[in-house]
Amino acid sequence: MTQDIALKAAEMLGIIREKKPLVHHITNWVTISECASITRSLGALPVMAHAEEEVEEMVSISGALVLNIGTLTPVLINAMIKAGKQANLRGIPVILDIVGVGATGLRTDSTRRILSEVKIAVIKGNAGEVATLAGAQAEVRGVESISVEGRTEEHAVTLAVSENCTVVVTAAVDLVTDGERMFMIGNGHPMMGEVVGTGCMAASVIGSFAAVEEDVTLAAACAMVVYGIAGEMAAVDAKGPGSMKQNLFDAIMAVGKEDILNGAKIDAR
Amino acid sequence: MTQDIALKAAEMLGIIREKKPLVHHITNWVTISECASITRSLGALPVMAHAEEEVEEMVSISGALVLNIGTLTPVLINAMIKAGKQANLRGIPVILDIVGVGATGLRTDSTRRILSEVKIAVIKGNAGEVATLAGAQAEVRGVESISVEGRTEEHAVTLAVSENCTVVVTAAVDLVTDGERMFMIGNGHPMMGEVVGTGCMAASVIGSFAAVEEDVTLAAACAMVVYGIAGEMAAVDAKGPGSMKQNLFDAIMAVGKEDILNGAKIDAR
Amino acid sequence: MTQDIALKAAEMLGIIREKKPLVHHITNWVTISECASITRSLGALPVMAHAEEEVEEMVSISGALVLNIGTLTPVLINAMIKAGKQANLRGIPVILDIVGVGATGLRTDSTRRILSEVKIAVIKGNAGEVATLAGAQAEVRGVESISVEGRTEEHAVTLAVSENCTVVVTAAVDLVTDGERMFMIGNGHPMMGEVVGTGCMAASVIGSFAAVEEDVTLAAACAMVVYGIAGEMAAVDAKGPGSMKQNLFDAIMAVGKEDILNGAKIDAR
Repeated sequence: MTQDIALKAAEMLGIIREKKPLVHHITNWVTISECASITRSLGALPVMAHAEEEVEEMVSISGALVLNIGTLTPVLINAMIKAGKQANLRGIPVILDIVGVGATGLRTDSTRRILSEVKIAVIKGNAGEVATLAGAQAEVRGVESISVEGRTEEHAVTLAVSENCTVVVTAAVDLVTDGERMFMIGNGHPMMGEVVGTGCMAASVIGSFAAVEEDVTLAAACAMVVYGIAGEMAAVDAKGPGSMKQNLFDAIMAVGKEDILNGAKIDAR
Repeated sequence: MTQDIALKAAEMLGIIREKKPLVHHITNWVTISECASITRSLGALPVMAHAEEEVEEMVSISGALVLNIGTLTPVLINAMIKAGKQANLRGIPVILDIVGVGATGLRTDSTRRILSEVKIAVIKGNAGEVATLAGAQAEVRGVESISVEGRTEEHAVTLAVSENCTVVVTAAVDLVTDGERMFMIGNGHPMMGEVVGTGCMAASVIGSFAAVEEDVTLAAACAMVVYGIAGEMAAVDAKGPGSMKQNLFDAIMAVGKEDILNGAKIDAR
Repeated sequence: MTQDIALKAAEMLGIIREKKPLVHHITNWVTISECASITRSLGALPVMAHAEEEVEEMVSISGALVLNIGTLTPVLINAMIKAGKQANLRGIPVILDIVGVGATGLRTDSTRRILSEVKIAVIKGNAGEVATLAGAQAEVRGVESISVEGRTEEHAVTLAVSENCTVVVTAAVDLVTDGERMFMIGNGHPMMGEVVGTGCMAASVIGSFAAVEEDVTLAAACAMVVYGIAGEMAAVDAKGPGSMKQNLFDAIMAVGKEDILNGAKIDAR
């Protein structure tokens, strides 16, 4: 099982590097540079474009659309919805990173608005964010998950079913579910949690994989495996969050088939 | 004296790392990533949120608010004032980084407007920016202090008294004053001055300390000690501004009680 | 010939470091931090300011203006035009980085609008972007040049003549032409192409050189030589795009006269 998925992940990575799909981001101003860099270092082509006047045209030449509400404004949400609708028309997968949902009403309401107007392929969040959207109690302090009532696995399934999409929960063990299948990915390194932007970058990696694989749940699981392995490689000689972040870009360009086949830690049921 | 403050600084740092206060930033687009990273690496939790529709709610769950006018617009200034007023109501300290005051009328006028509508706990700037606000002659070229007429110490005291707040002047020897007490911090490294964003990051560190200590003047002085020591540690094997910046994030996570007790260089009168 | 230009490049670099001209940027949110850092590390002073209310005042104290449409909006384009007109009135050179021209109508139209209202000194783009503006067929995927019909050299000359300006095409061999002179710069390293932002940073370096040298074509050529040599130095111990980017800031501060005299690879006709 693990080896099948590992092989699949290596295969997808090869296709990304060969086809260089364009991954259109409408994202936040904090990690916009990091998201572009991780996409480029992985082998895909990032483009960041948020003007309402061009998002439809830009997404039309893209392989995936990544939306991130980290520094949302109503104007930016409008652009996301416009781009998302166009992506839907063209069958381009849309990834939604629900940064800080639960911390403010604007974040929760805007996310619900996006979900009601755009068909989202993959929702990505931390435990608190996903719990909030699934209707459970949780504390989200800014963009950090502090506490969650109930089981995260169940919140992920609840949200996947209600939105009819794939849900990715980033944590020590990442969860990827479409409501039926559940993948648990043990790759990654605690140091990743100390670096601002690793969550946002995960969505960029998922978008790159979703651009080359129709089964977006499998694509998301494979993305988390590859990203996690790159994180493990990056941590080897990291001395803190500064060197860790830099190493991560080096590692994601260096990660190869053997690293994936030997390093994948994924369970499914 | 130095040892008392050093002990206090180490104690505050311990509290930051234990309580992880949320530090809400409304800041510029140049160093927004760096400000988030330094806050996180120090041990606090950063959140960057500037939509008028959410700033009041976000600041309400925060331990401090950091305002930075580096890439100001009138819309952003409105959000700052809205957040600042809410912070005032709740007794949350507001740090104002007066980037480029004196370079354009918009910067000077916007700062005065913020000061007239929001009770600021700490104003941070370089010598030229502080001199400008204190009513003295100075040349600020973009965001850099080029020349100042008169003594910086006096400008800092003048501004602290007129605004009834703490003033921090970043320089080779940093000054922290509330108009009565004056702290002079000799920690830091010339290489910090070569890295874009070290000034902005200082405000993030001050905000993190002010979130855990009621005496904001002492908090600001301790912040500059710890930040300066991290800078010294970062410079040890820095080869230029690129490695210096990366090392700074590693160092601020690594800095510990012994580093502070052995390394603090602070005078007061 | 090569040695003459190398000497001239070293001389200009010395003047930049001595006079520290202010380089005003109105740029994108992806690489705004990198552009500020490369300008500062080179020895000039960056300032990023985009509010319509202050751009005229800010550009008036600057030595050059760098415009970059990477994350354009109509509001930002208006600010660029306002700043550009003021720069024209004062004889301050304007550098235009045409990021993504050809990818969307907004980018192409906005660029034409800027060109019709502002006298641009230097247009910088990749082969696809320059071909598009020159009226040739090309594919620009997001911000990446994928294919170009016809010869890039001719497109550069066509554009330089029609806009009566200097055109810089970044590639393995960079081209700099004013329609009559043509400089071909062989400095640089393939790893630069793997780092997000190296194109944008090139415009910042060109702006810094144009701030100290009236012959902007020669300034641009010298800028590409120095930037390329820094890239070669940075690549020596880079392990991937993360370390490459960091090393680039270290290298551009370290690059000296001997590096330029020994390393310049420039042809002209």
